[in-house]
Amino acid sequence: MRIEIICTGDEVLTGKIVNTNFSTMSQKLEDFGLSVRWGTIVGDDRQTLLAAFRLAAGRVDAVIVNGGLGPTIDDLSQEVAAEAVGVDLVLNEAWLARMEEFFQRRSRVMPPNNRKQAMLPAGAEVLDNPIGTACGFALDIGGARFFFTPGVPRELNRMLEEQIIPRLLALSGVTAVIHLKRFHSYGLGESHIDALLAGVEDLVPDGSVKLGFRAHYPEIETKLTVRGTDIADVHRKLAPVEQEVRKRLGNFILAEDGQTLEGVVLAALAERGGSLAVVETFTAGHIAARLAHLPGAEKLFCRGIVARDLIQLQDALGLPADFASAALTAAAAELVARAAWRQSGATHALAVLIDLDEGADRIDLGGSIYVGIATEREAVSRRARIVGGREWVRLGAAELGLDCLRRYLHGLPVHQRIDFEKV
Amino acid sequence: MRIEIICTGDEVLTGKIVNTNFSTMSQKLEDFGLSVRWGTIVGDDRQTLLAAFRLAAGRVDAVIVNGGLGPTIDDLSQEVAAEAVGVDLVLNEAWLARMEEFFQRRSRVMPPNNRKQAMLPAGAEVLDNPIGTACGFALDIGGARFFFTPGVPRELNRMLEEQIIPRLLALSGVTAVIHLKRFHSYGLGESHIDALLAGVEDLVPDGSVKLGFRAHYPEIETKLTVRGTDIADVHRKLAPVEQEVRKRLGNFILAEDGQTLEGVVLAALAERGGSLAVVETFTAGHIAARLAHLPGAEKLFCRGIVARDLIQLQDALGLPADFASAALTAAAAELVARAAWRQSGATHALAVLIDLDEGADRIDLGGSIYVGIATEREAVSRRARIVGGREWVRLGAAELGLDCLRRYLHGLPVHQRIDFEKV
Repeated sequence: MRIEIICTGDEVLTGKIVNTNFSTMSQKLEDFGLSVRWGTIVGDDRQTLLAAFRLAAGRVDAVIVNGGLGPTIDDLSQEVAAEAVGVDLVLNEAWLARMEEFFQRRSRVMPPNNRKQAMLPAGAEVLDNPIGTACGFALDIGGARFFFTPGVPRELNRMLEEQIIPRLLALSGVTAVIHLKRFHSYGLGESHIDALLAGVEDLVPDGSVKLGFRAHYPEIETKLTVRGTDIADVHRKLAPVEQEVRKRLGNFILAEDGQTLEGVVLAALAERGGSLAVVETFTAGHIAARLAHLPGAEKLFCRGIVARDLIQLQDALGLPADFASAALTAAAAELVARAAWRQSGATHALAVLIDLDEGADRIDLGGSIYVGIATEREAVSRRARIVGGREWVRLGAAELGLDCLRRYLHGLPVHQRIDFEKV
Repeated sequence: MRIEIICTGDEVLTGKIVNTNFSTMSQKLEDFGLSVRWGTIVGDDRQTLLAAFRLAAGRVDAVIVNGGLGPTIDDLSQEVAAEAVGVDLVLNEAWLARMEEFFQRRSRVMPPNNRKQAMLPAGAEVLDNPIGTACGFALDIGGARFFFTPGVPRELNRMLEEQIIPRLLALSGVTAVIHLKRFHSYGLGESHIDALLAGVEDLVPDGSVKLGFRAHYPEIETKLTVRGTDIADVHRKLAPVEQEVRKRLGNFILAEDGQTLEGVVLAALAERGGSLAVVETFTAGHIAARLAHLPGAEKLFCRGIVARDLIQLQDALGLPADFASAALTAAAAELVARAAWRQSGATHALAVLIDLDEGADRIDLGGSIYVGIATEREAVSRRARIVGGREWVRLGAAELGLDCLRRYLHGLPVHQRIDFEKV
């Protein structure tokens, strides 16, 4: 099935807002084996919208139109849809009642111009929006089925998952259940993962498991899309592939599905009644900022210390007087972690110290990273060198530090060479 | 002049990467008074690309094609452009020499498939790319001028600014010099700024100054686009408007043009030989992470302390034993700032303490924010309440804290009511 996405709105067209709705929609459709063939971006202009609808109607089977369902004068989607089909706009009494109730529950009176949101092209099918006042709808224009969606991301995402994807799958003749399994990893490049996972799809010979990747440095997401007759069939097919992926990527898998590295670290600490102190230099608060604001971190995250200067670090942690004048080493990172452990009373302390190359930012600017972890029982450390400019080093070091802590908490080797490391 | 942008590439079409190139291009063209009328997104598919080029050639005057100039088999822009015009691809010897030199300077041998990047449609005009191997080019397809650009953002941006925008301005008959002046503010909503600045454009009666906004919470950017016969004319026209904007937005302007709030704060500290310590709770390292990694912050940023729990904070700063059991107040923020000032030896200490509402995240979850600033001379504070969910409070509090420090360093009132504040 050929699908087009039309994003509407002057704010998107003029670049005032980045069009994340397009990538979110396209990615989500891909996850269900549906491919977008064409994307169109147009402003809040009647003639252009009509031209865009007509072009799409002539070249694809299904169209998702995003935006233009609001209450204001420049929200034109319903009007232009009606014009494209050659029907009138009709008041949808049921949606009007829903909107009035929506405002009542918030102790507000519905402004008169919201009534416009209940005017739908005659014959349109309503697509429910349980969390907003914009009414989604579907209708045929020419040979294509059009789905009209709100611009607010969370309303769009819910409508896409609950209303549109099932209809698209039905239209494309797919009766299967489709399930997406995700693995998040750090330390292996995309082509390396691709090579490591060669052939895993073939563990299910009927082609119902598809492998894909999404890289967002420093992490890479490995995705398995599985089709089955029902959810039991999906799980039966997924089980051996899932197991094989875990075996081949091993310690590099840091989280699965909706989990995050920082969430996994906090959960591992919570499980053992642990707590954490973090010491940072050039990552500059970035590690703390990933962990410490999360719900539940109030008691688990004891303390974070940021210093760029080693004398300040020496002073903040009461380190020996010669600390700042010596070169950074893995042993120094252990010393710092031990001091933070003692000072904070946390069960675990993580120190990430960075010796950044001198000079202006450039693609071959690197940093030597020293990670130390201390507990009551011991201190461990790891050194790595990452090259790729200030931001690349900063993001990589924060990820490396958190990943070392995850490995330590899970009893895995803290030191395992990664692809981003330079000798 | 009608302009279309065609973004090409499977990674963009499938949503694997967010299409920031589109918004960057569109925004930059808007800044020069050039408006994009239509956006198209297509994959690395010969037939679709050809169809997209032909459609664009029929409906606009100029087209920017982004992506597809790489060395691999799925980079099709040159080939499809040649096909659309009905000419052959010809080796551009000059560009080939440039590429060979590019590799030599990096002590590498040019791989044979890079040669493909020097094959251009016969008659195409070269658009220089001084920082990459992808050769930009321009040619006419039908009635429209097409500009082909690389997908790598920094190469695209440079080519757009240096090569394409001047050509588009010339094509559209603009002989004027166009200049963009930007003001960054925090604390005033977009409609409030719009009202405050009513009529400033009319200070230059010939319509050559245009006002615009771009909101990216918590900051809002106010933009003045000025046209003049030459740069002297631009500055003459801009001067009174610029002065009026500064007068009307006053203390709320936190930075101009390429400056950032954190850069302004660091510069103000550096100017007086000062230094900084920061104490954070729910902002969780976010304030430190904005400042401390910047070039030059090594000596200015003394120390950052993060704690979510008041007992930890009490312990980390050696505060009185009843600190953690008392309610947060502005006085408590002053106390914390004083302690951090003493402990760190910095000339200035900033404390941002947050009392976050209980319960799950929701749109009406708020936080009471207590900002304290301490120096040798005094301690000052400010309280604010922000409502809008965890992320909204966290980002707003970090901005509020940094902005209070900017105001203090510049001798402006630290306490001035902002639009995002609830009573």
